[in-house]
Amino acid sequence: MTKVQSKRSILLAGLLIACLALGRSMYADEGMWTFNNFPSQKVGENYGFTPSQAWLDHVRLSSLRIAGGCSASFISPGGLVMTNHHCVVDCVEQLSTAKDNFVEEGFIAKTAAEERKCPDFELDQLVEIRDVTAEVQGATAGKTGDAANKALHAKEAELQQSCGSDPSVRCDIVSLYYGGIYDLYRYKRYTDVRLVFAPEYAVAQFGGDPDNFNFPRFDFDIGLLRAYEGSKPVASHDYLKWSANGSTDGELVFVSGNPGGTSRQLTVAQLEFERDTVFPARVPDIAEYRGELEDFVTRGPQQAREGKEDLFFIENSFKVLFGREEALLDPHFFGIKVQDEQKLRAATAADPKLAGDVSAWDDIAKIQELRKQLYWQNATLGSRSFRAGLLGYAVTLVRAASERTKPNTERLPEYTDQALVHVQQALSAPVPIYKEVEELNLAFLFSHIRRDLGTDDPFVRKMLGDESPEELAHRLVNGTRLEDPKVREQLYKGGEEAIKASDDPMLRFAKSINGDLLAERKEYEAQVEAPTRAAAERIAKARFAIYGTGVAPDATFTARLNYGAVKGFENAEGKFVEPYTTMGGLYQRATGAPPYKLPESWLNAKSVLNLSTPMNLATTNDIIGGNSGSPLINKDASIVGLIFDGNIFSLGGDYGYDAAQNRAIAVDSRALLEGLRKVYHFDRVVDEIEGARR
Amino acid sequence: MTKVQSKRSILLAGLLIACLALGRSMYADEGMWTFNNFPSQKVGENYGFTPSQAWLDHVRLSSLRIAGGCSASFISPGGLVMTNHHCVVDCVEQLSTAKDNFVEEGFIAKTAAEERKCPDFELDQLVEIRDVTAEVQGATAGKTGDAANKALHAKEAELQQSCGSDPSVRCDIVSLYYGGIYDLYRYKRYTDVRLVFAPEYAVAQFGGDPDNFNFPRFDFDIGLLRAYEGSKPVASHDYLKWSANGSTDGELVFVSGNPGGTSRQLTVAQLEFERDTVFPARVPDIAEYRGELEDFVTRGPQQAREGKEDLFFIENSFKVLFGREEALLDPHFFGIKVQDEQKLRAATAADPKLAGDVSAWDDIAKIQELRKQLYWQNATLGSRSFRAGLLGYAVTLVRAASERTKPNTERLPEYTDQALVHVQQALSAPVPIYKEVEELNLAFLFSHIRRDLGTDDPFVRKMLGDESPEELAHRLVNGTRLEDPKVREQLYKGGEEAIKASDDPMLRFAKSINGDLLAERKEYEAQVEAPTRAAAERIAKARFAIYGTGVAPDATFTARLNYGAVKGFENAEGKFVEPYTTMGGLYQRATGAPPYKLPESWLNAKSVLNLSTPMNLATTNDIIGGNSGSPLINKDASIVGLIFDGNIFSLGGDYGYDAAQNRAIAVDSRALLEGLRKVYHFDRVVDEIEGARR
Repeated sequence: MTKVQSKRSILLAGLLIACLALGRSMYADEGMWTFNNFPSQKVGENYGFTPSQAWLDHVRLSSLRIAGGCSASFISPGGLVMTNHHCVVDCVEQLSTAKDNFVEEGFIAKTAAEERKCPDFELDQLVEIRDVTAEVQGATAGKTGDAANKALHAKEAELQQSCGSDPSVRCDIVSLYYGGIYDLYRYKRYTDVRLVFAPEYAVAQFGGDPDNFNFPRFDFDIGLLRAYEGSKPVASHDYLKWSANGSTDGELVFVSGNPGGTSRQLTVAQLEFERDTVFPARVPDIAEYRGELEDFVTRGPQQAREGKEDLFFIENSFKVLFGREEALLDPHFFGIKVQDEQKLRAATAADPKLAGDVSAWDDIAKIQELRKQLYWQNATLGSRSFRAGLLGYAVTLVRAASERTKPNTERLPEYTDQALVHVQQALSAPVPIYKEVEELNLAFLFSHIRRDLGTDDPFVRKMLGDESPEELAHRLVNGTRLEDPKVREQLYKGGEEAIKASDDPMLRFAKSINGDLLAERKEYEAQVEAPTRAAAERIAKARFAIYGTGVAPDATFTARLNYGAVKGFENAEGKFVEPYTTMGGLYQRATGAPPYKLPESWLNAKSVLNLSTPMNLATTNDIIGGNSGSPLINKDASIVGLIFDGNIFSLGGDYGYDAAQNRAIAVDSRALLEGLRKVYHFDRVVDEIEGARR
Repeated sequence: MTKVQSKRSILLAGLLIACLALGRSMYADEGMWTFNNFPSQKVGENYGFTPSQAWLDHVRLSSLRIAGGCSASFISPGGLVMTNHHCVVDCVEQLSTAKDNFVEEGFIAKTAAEERKCPDFELDQLVEIRDVTAEVQGATAGKTGDAANKALHAKEAELQQSCGSDPSVRCDIVSLYYGGIYDLYRYKRYTDVRLVFAPEYAVAQFGGDPDNFNFPRFDFDIGLLRAYEGSKPVASHDYLKWSANGSTDGELVFVSGNPGGTSRQLTVAQLEFERDTVFPARVPDIAEYRGELEDFVTRGPQQAREGKEDLFFIENSFKVLFGREEALLDPHFFGIKVQDEQKLRAATAADPKLAGDVSAWDDIAKIQELRKQLYWQNATLGSRSFRAGLLGYAVTLVRAASERTKPNTERLPEYTDQALVHVQQALSAPVPIYKEVEELNLAFLFSHIRRDLGTDDPFVRKMLGDESPEELAHRLVNGTRLEDPKVREQLYKGGEEAIKASDDPMLRFAKSINGDLLAERKEYEAQVEAPTRAAAERIAKARFAIYGTGVAPDATFTARLNYGAVKGFENAEGKFVEPYTTMGGLYQRATGAPPYKLPESWLNAKSVLNLSTPMNLATTNDIIGGNSGSPLINKDASIVGLIFDGNIFSLGGDYGYDAAQNRAIAVDSRALLEGLRKVYHFDRVVDEIEGARR
């Protein structure tokens, strides 16, 4: 806690410069603030309400992170958890069968006994933040390249280990300001998470891809879970009550959640690398795989069920990446980033204590040239596809076996003792595997690696041998037995010997390429990541000295709080869009054709619903992917909505927040109750929520 | 012909400035030269051979354009025509059935009687070039916007009509230097074109997409046609003989063909528009449709047969567009374009007679801002998909009916009396229609229009009504009868009344949206194209005054000749690549898995082939898409190869030619004869070719 105060005093000293220099960055409502550096005083000045430490602690402890990439909150003393439908759809789909298609039909646990365990779910509750900057920076000081990475990983493993070995405790080292601050986040971890409610996909995602990131909007994007411990619902001491009256236009509102990542403090050279190298390559790749899935899901009902969720997420990724690319391609927007950097560089150069750090920007620019050369190698061999599905299991098993033979502090960070808790959970989770989708995915991966590196590349020759990408994918997917959690568990327990003895083709394939993948990773981390971190630390130092921590750190998928107001906006056509939509609007928009086709339950309930109930709303809160499922709360810390999206302008929010147009989008709390009560007759749970109403 | 001479004298006057100013543009071998402005003297100086007028005329008359987008040449006095396999694959696929899959199995007309008419093919032989600059520029002088477009179209129609009404004569107005020169090109048109030979797809496109635009290469990418007139083979007075000995490293070689389009003389503002607006949107679109087709062709043998050709062309388009984007994203390359423009602008400003035209660059920059605003509207409503397949027939029928009620000079240019010759041919061609592919294509079109314009756009609402894109596509494709050429012919003949009376859903749909499509087009042509043309004319004027026509005009899919030499190059890894590959290399590269799987015919012939025969070769000729099928000839005008591709660096050739790395790729003439004789035993035709050997 000392750190926050010292930062604050730096902040005050730097404020005048900050106001001059930051220009648009000082707009109201910007910032995804850490809980230990929340600008309560500024909120008080602007909105007349100053959150107290107790208020902040209560909100933090009521909030949850879903390890898969979302946010959530406790909403009853009985461990009831609210998040988005699209944050639980993974689980809904995993519990579905050809007979019970819960994705299409929805899921309602009529009794507590019907609440069903999600195969692979983790909820994290942030219970403590501790500053470990000095320890971490001390460990890497003077080291470069691979040595710096090893020292960093060793120190992180050591710090994690200091939390003990209780698997319900999770400790992460969080790097803020790209290494300017290191904090240790201690979480209470819940791994017995059960599905309580999911509406039909058609109303949760009403409007589908065309309406995604648009507003006006009419989605019922809610999913309810319950945290269990020892087979009993968790008694959640901190939870968010339900607001009796919802919100009003202009009202102060907060969002507590886990924004996944932003790039606002990257240097211009790094942004240029994203704009000119990453996006032109990645956006078409995603588009192509999207095309494959679009056709795949029309093959038949089975393929539709198995591919729909992947398609939804890839459509979403495409829109996000394309929106980010558009933002960087906007010369005005990019010009502001250039100006901001020039100002910070000039201020750095003007301060005798900092002037030596001006070269950090040039260092980073130089690293981008190297990144460009390494790009295809890194994009292919570092592909996420090696960490997903059946191949992901195989790679994990191969690595877990060899990493476990090393001391904890010398392992790859994702195989430390603490990290192995989740590795084991994931390996043993009875998640259904769709072999046809797996084959599609791997054939895509293999053919892209060949396309990007060339037929004559040594790795490509080794990977494919005399097979085509399609043949290789088919042989591996159809020959493996890794879809069986029992097989995976045995291989995990058997360690290196079991791996060596196995003739599973997927495992053998993973073993044959693992060395190449790790070598590429090591090279990239040593040549790019370590020197980038060293330079970024110097920039962070300059930034603190000049602006203090009056600028929030870039998002890191950790707990953040932000404030804003319910507010409409001007759309791209220059038309003002009101901040609330209504349930009546939902029915008006329904054409009967997907994705504007309402499920039976909603068609039947129309006459009993109050159609003037606010359905969705727009607020000025500064959010980004990862905030999905975040509670929208008022100054009483009562729920007035459930964040599920941003408007189209919010996509540029990765690089900078514009209060004039960026909007968060939430399901209105009044629509949630109206729907749960009158459409789904889910009195058991509505009573539980209303019992918790403020 | 007077024009050329006068240009030449301007050229000489401007040469010194040109050398100073153009920098890299003056590299040897650059330029796709028109036949009436070929730099024979320069070739003589550099290579010791000065093509005479007779030589040029002979080559021009031996060369052919395939109206669908390729080049070709007469190679015997009996009307035998050589081009690429990928230039005839359309026809091969149209002649195929489920039983006779000529794409997979190849096609050999063992006798003259077995030569089969391609349903929709046109060969054009350029017989005369006439300068009409004064007439065209005079007609539009002082006019702007829509009035300028109308005047231009009227003048063009009038000039075309001056060629008479013989359907075997085709006259096109060719705009060179973006309106700096207008030439009337008179062609002899052949529409009875028959397929003589096509190898198996697997050897024609050996290496498929991974090897496309790469070298070393091993493709047998040849297709043979024969032009007929009055049911008899054409007696081709001019044709190219076959070289007895092929070529040697360093030898002077020419390419005569029809490069489709280059953008070397676009302004920097126009290039920025392509780089920052067009490519980021189009490349992912193409990638997504590619993904859909990639999955589609794996559904079954029928879908493979019906979708494979589309997939091949879309893979090719993707690579071309991505390569062009990469070129513009290269800061060094783009910097040269900026410098070139600055020099030309400075020289323009320095000349009192030209200084007034400097504002033309600013005019074009301003137009780009408008283009950006109109981009999505133009990209969607102006989509090529409205001109292809069943919907293309419907739109054509609707427009042809109404345009024919107008005087010739007031029609849309594609419906003038002369243009109607091809319209009628295309409508009555018995081309097979694959309804499943059509549906895929239209669903993609409709869903993209909605995605790009938004669900609430008035056109989208009108287009879709209460249907989803998929539902609309399904209803139109399954309800229409336009796949029947007889139905199309009747509707064409019936004119407006027949269109009005028809209840064909595709036709009714085309009718309902035709007004919107034409309104968008008119707006774009008036607001963007007319003022761009006016500004480009002024830039062209300045360019001529300063550099003369010593810089070739951008390619326009019209007859061009260029010169170069057989030559290797340094690849991206800095390794020198020899200019020739061998037949032996083909067998070494064959893994047995597609796209490296040789057909039976080639596997069987291995022992009788001379494996040291040169297979493919690389030359410094400056080519681009549209040059496919061009003959590669030596100074005797004898064939030494058949152009079918460029190397990866040639993709940037759209914007500028770099002699160090840009290479054209051809099948070696020796491999062609070796393969035709020993693999295919096609003695009938080889004897015909060898009879014509020099």
